[in-house]
Amino acid sequence: MSVSQIDKLINDISKLPGLGRRSAQRIALHLIKNKEKFLLPLVQTLREANLKIIDCDNCGNIDMINPCSLCQNTKRDECTILVVEDVSDLWTFERIGFFKGMYHVLGGSLSAMNGIGLDELRIKNLIDRINKQKVTEVILGLSTTMEGQTTSHVVADKLEDFENLIITRLAQGVPIGGEVHFLDENTLNTAFQSRKKIS
Amino acid sequence: MSVSQIDKLINDISKLPGLGRRSAQRIALHLIKNKEKFLLPLVQTLREANLKIIDCDNCGNIDMINPCSLCQNTKRDECTILVVEDVSDLWTFERIGFFKGMYHVLGGSLSAMNGIGLDELRIKNLIDRINKQKVTEVILGLSTTMEGQTTSHVVADKLEDFENLIITRLAQGVPIGGEVHFLDENTLNTAFQSRKKIS
Repeated sequence: MSVSQIDKLINDISKLPGLGRRSAQRIALHLIKNKEKFLLPLVQTLREANLKIIDCDNCGNIDMINPCSLCQNTKRDECTILVVEDVSDLWTFERIGFFKGMYHVLGGSLSAMNGIGLDELRIKNLIDRINKQKVTEVILGLSTTMEGQTTSHVVADKLEDFENLIITRLAQGVPIGGEVHFLDENTLNTAFQSRKKIS
Repeated sequence: MSVSQIDKLINDISKLPGLGRRSAQRIALHLIKNKEKFLLPLVQTLREANLKIIDCDNCGNIDMINPCSLCQNTKRDECTILVVEDVSDLWTFERIGFFKGMYHVLGGSLSAMNGIGLDELRIKNLIDRINKQKVTEVILGLSTTMEGQTTSHVVADKLEDFENLIITRLAQGVPIGGEVHFLDENTLNTAFQSRKKIS
């Protein structure tokens, strides 16, 4: 069977994150069977995305303008920077909407396995921003995975020379709605050690 | 935030079958962050797929040639036609590989909900093929959903005027490896009614 082009399509789709071969097959067939309605508009959207969506040199977010609209928004509090791993984490904070300061996207967390070292993360940019901008607090909003916690420590170390800069991290403990008997040992231990007095 | 282009990308991706908004977000970010490595090659593959992958006018399969390589394969048994709903079903039979006859892809099954009526299915083409080709058996390899079974009946009805044509359907019963206590009522009832004598 000379189905190389079909195989190529399925292969390319199955390389996308979270998609296995079966999902890729289903999507490929859907696209081929709906060339006008789905395949061609998707090609057009991808080409436009390639041209128009760019990185923000300041915070590492993606947008159609550089600096991004969050960095250009004068209503946001310039004194606080929330450091996140990825743009998807930034989106999560923005969706919930309580944070009104600035962001800094590191671009991942330190991971020997994924080949992400200090040079791959935007730590130097963060230091430059703190030098230029009047920053009073840096919040480390990284994951509580092994990699995220290591990265938090390293970033905190790099920032310790700044006088009068408060460095904080997200609280760790029992998630809201979490049932104690389902918690893993680490979370329960952390929550226990960090217990708070009920006033 | 002027993120219309990003939203457009996520929207277009989330329209693909099996993808929710979160998966679409993840894929969109992955593409934007890897324009050279993933986005542009995907655009190229999609454009080539659009130009090169075509429907087989004979059986409804997709391929880069028309009639498709299965229809052009003279080693396959022309006397038997296996009727399937979709190309993905054809792929499943081909992957397992025991069937050596011809296929006929109906293009779905009758479904008022999905707006698929008799005119949407390639039943007339099937009748034309039986008229031209020397077919002795038509196997209905449709799903055992309500829609698939209805479609099987309708197709069988349309073929009943052909003399000496055997019309069969796949056996129904307990799937191999299936545990009786997990079976639904319909399957167990069908398997019971169609029980076979152990010789």
